[in-house]
Amino acid sequence: MSIDQHGVTQFRENGFFIQNDILAPADLQQLVEALDVFAKDPLPGHVKEKNSNVYRAFHGCHLYNQAYSDLVRRPEFLQIARELVNDDVYLHQLKVNLKQAFSGETWPWHQDYIYWRNEDKVPTNAIVSVMIFLDDITEFNGPLFFIPRSHKSGCIEPKIPEGAPAGWEGNVSASLTYQVSDELVTALVDKGGLFSAKGKKGTAVWFDGNIVHASPPNISPSQRRIAILTYNAVSNAPRDENLSERRPDFLNARDRSPLHELWYELGVTA
Amino acid sequence: MSIDQHGVTQFRENGFFIQNDILAPADLQQLVEALDVFAKDPLPGHVKEKNSNVYRAFHGCHLYNQAYSDLVRRPEFLQIARELVNDDVYLHQLKVNLKQAFSGETWPWHQDYIYWRNEDKVPTNAIVSVMIFLDDITEFNGPLFFIPRSHKSGCIEPKIPEGAPAGWEGNVSASLTYQVSDELVTALVDKGGLFSAKGKKGTAVWFDGNIVHASPPNISPSQRRIAILTYNAVSNAPRDENLSERRPDFLNARDRSPLHELWYELGVTA
Repeated sequence: MSIDQHGVTQFRENGFFIQNDILAPADLQQLVEALDVFAKDPLPGHVKEKNSNVYRAFHGCHLYNQAYSDLVRRPEFLQIARELVNDDVYLHQLKVNLKQAFSGETWPWHQDYIYWRNEDKVPTNAIVSVMIFLDDITEFNGPLFFIPRSHKSGCIEPKIPEGAPAGWEGNVSASLTYQVSDELVTALVDKGGLFSAKGKKGTAVWFDGNIVHASPPNISPSQRRIAILTYNAVSNAPRDENLSERRPDFLNARDRSPLHELWYELGVTA
Repeated sequence: MSIDQHGVTQFRENGFFIQNDILAPADLQQLVEALDVFAKDPLPGHVKEKNSNVYRAFHGCHLYNQAYSDLVRRPEFLQIARELVNDDVYLHQLKVNLKQAFSGETWPWHQDYIYWRNEDKVPTNAIVSVMIFLDDITEFNGPLFFIPRSHKSGCIEPKIPEGAPAGWEGNVSASLTYQVSDELVTALVDKGGLFSAKGKKGTAVWFDGNIVHASPPNISPSQRRIAILTYNAVSNAPRDENLSERRPDFLNARDRSPLHELWYELGVTA
């Protein structure tokens, strides 16, 4: 299997790249069916929309479900993740953002790495995410907006809004703890424009921990579910271990051993 | 000047049609400059976003400003409006929805005619609106979403949300008085799909009083200002005159005499 070098170049230049048709319908079905089970069985890391009974996100699905656990170790994901961070990788975090029909709320303009730096003490941005579309994503159901090339600004000192929830919940709510100011978003969009991450279910989008992004609410009748897998370089593991209560395992994985391709565990040689 | 018959056919079938390049840059500039003046000089019909000092809408601009007053009497608008309602027309209402950068809020799923029916006693849907883009409208700055063909459902009994503001302000806020239920929106989108009204500034979009529409917030750094002119058939004037306090002149015009093209007033013969 060869790495998508054009994609890697785009990632370095723009802060993201897209791969179509990465997951087959049967794989997607397993991932989606697991969500129905999660919805009936509240688990740590399940988050609701503000003032609502509608689920916003399920964190740590790989801890509870084999299909998500297998997803993390897909060879094509691990190979790209290792290339992008130039090291062996482990899974720092996995979540499914649901953004449900008529209910899914805004994600304000923010970067991801600042949460891992400030909350988890991840020392550098040698950490990368891949977002997998579990539904078709259109201009109507709350697609993610990237500011291309904004990752080149590095980790930006954040705007901390009034009224952000305390504890880790503030890091995953519509009132995010660390946001990027309107002034800076304006300047970054002047330079880089905006890109809307749309596509068929089964699409994968790799993105840099420092790319500035946001997404509008989902006012449409179509769900917009995405799984986000965040791989960290093994050499970039958090330095501070005194975080267990504020950053549970489903946000900051305690197992930092290098991941192996699924086929190793199945006894298949590459 | 000939009527756009293809557009009229689209209007009957889909509930809307689009005309590109209707206003020239100089015309647009006058309309936009007037908004800066309005923002400094609070007038009746100026509405702010909820819990905010940012303006959401200016109603009745034609009552205060010559450029808007002239806009209403542009021959190409009057001719199409008469064709669509099959009668002479007067202006029932004019507003500019500002949907400002980073601030402009959602408009929930709704129809327009039900407000004019219930609040103003406009007897039939022989009333039509044209929306004029004062800014480029993209997928990023909160475009209006139409459900094509939904106007064929007629005037739908509404969902009235809890907490809608009392008085006419509830008819123009993000907590609209009369909304269309999620279930019905789902059914209508299943049949008609969704259409996003995007385009360059100067674009005009005609739409039926019964088409179901909504728009997401503007989380982008680009303004999204639109002027909406609503023409009513002279024979369809409101029957009830006891509404003066609840529905001021800028929402329900008291002058129902037929409009004449601007060129009549300039002394030019067609």
